[in-house]
Amino acid sequence: MSFQGEQHPGVKAPAAETDGFRLNHTMLRVKDPEKALAFYSRVFGMSVVRRLDFEEMQFSLYFLARLEKDDVVPEEAGQRTVWTFSQKGLLELTHNWGTEEQQDFAYHDGNAEPQGFGHICFSVPDLEAAEAWFDANDVEFIKRSDQGKMKNVVFVKDADGYWIEVVQADRLAAMGD
Amino acid sequence: MSFQGEQHPGVKAPAAETDGFRLNHTMLRVKDPEKALAFYSRVFGMSVVRRLDFEEMQFSLYFLARLEKDDVVPEEAGQRTVWTFSQKGLLELTHNWGTEEQQDFAYHDGNAEPQGFGHICFSVPDLEAAEAWFDANDVEFIKRSDQGKMKNVVFVKDADGYWIEVVQADRLAAMGD
Repeated sequence: MSFQGEQHPGVKAPAAETDGFRLNHTMLRVKDPEKALAFYSRVFGMSVVRRLDFEEMQFSLYFLARLEKDDVVPEEAGQRTVWTFSQKGLLELTHNWGTEEQQDFAYHDGNAEPQGFGHICFSVPDLEAAEAWFDANDVEFIKRSDQGKMKNVVFVKDADGYWIEVVQADRLAAMGD
Repeated sequence: MSFQGEQHPGVKAPAAETDGFRLNHTMLRVKDPEKALAFYSRVFGMSVVRRLDFEEMQFSLYFLARLEKDDVVPEEAGQRTVWTFSQKGLLELTHNWGTEEQQDFAYHDGNAEPQGFGHICFSVPDLEAAEAWFDANDVEFIKRSDQGKMKNVVFVKDADGYWIEVVQADRLAAMGD
C-alpha cells in the first residue's frame, strides 16, 4: 500500500503467510489490580472479559475490552478464553501477586529513562467532554488539549503512571502538516 | 459484566460518559524505522496507513494496521489521519530522528529491569505455520510453543527487541485451569 508523497522505508507487501494474523492485545504490568481495574472500567468504560490465574507462577491476567453493543461474550470459561484471544485491540493487565502490598513498589512507564514503550491511546467522540469526565474522576493530566505543541491531544496517567493519549479523530485532519 | 466464579476486584459498570471511547493504538519507540517497518510488514503483514512528520520536534510517527479485505483507507492525507485515529488496535511506531545512526543506541523492552510494559500479542490461525514462517524470516524466538510452562504460547522479538506473543486462540481453551 502506498500513498502519494509519503515514504515508508523498508515496507514489504503483506505475504499470504500472514493471512488471519490479528493484533490481539497489549500487555502492561500493574501493581494493584483493584486500582487498575477501577481506573480502566470507570474512566475508560472497559470491561474485564477474562481473568486467568496462574497459582504456580503467582500471577493473574486480566483481559479488558471496550465492548460494543453487538459484542456477545461467551459465559463458559474456555469459550470465553478463545473469544478473548480472537479479538482485536484488547488491553491485558498482569498482576504479579503481592506487589500491591509493597509500599515502594512501582512499575516503569517507559517515558522516563530508559525509554521504550510510550503510551496507549483512546479515541473519543468529544475531547472537551472527555476532559471534563477525567476531571470529574480526579484523573491526573500530563497535558490538556490546549497545552503544548500538539494541540487537540490530551495525555493522562493511569493508576500505575502509564501514559494514555486521548484524541478526537475528526479534529486531527491537519496533524503533521 | 460478571462471570460465574470469576472475581474482578474494583470493577465498575461502564458509564454513559465513555460511550464511543475506543482503544486506538499502542505506541512503541523504534531506533531505525526502515528495520522496524521491514519487520512488521514482512513478518506480521502490517501496512503503514499513515506517516506523520514533525520537523520542529525531529520525529516521525508511523501508524500500522493489519488491514482486512473490507478496509478502505482514504488516499487524501487529512482524511487518512482521521480514519487512522478512528480505528481499533493499531500499532504506532515513533522514530526520533538520528537514533538509527547511533551505534550503541537501544530502546528498553520493559521486561528487563525496570519492568513495566510487557509485550504486544498477535493471534494467528495456525501456530505451527506461524513458527515456520518466523524461522523462514530469521525471527528471534524467546520461546517456542513446546517450550516452558505456557504451552501453545510463542514469544518472539521484534527488530528493537520488544516482545511479541503469538497464540492460536482455539488452542487456549484450557489456559489458566
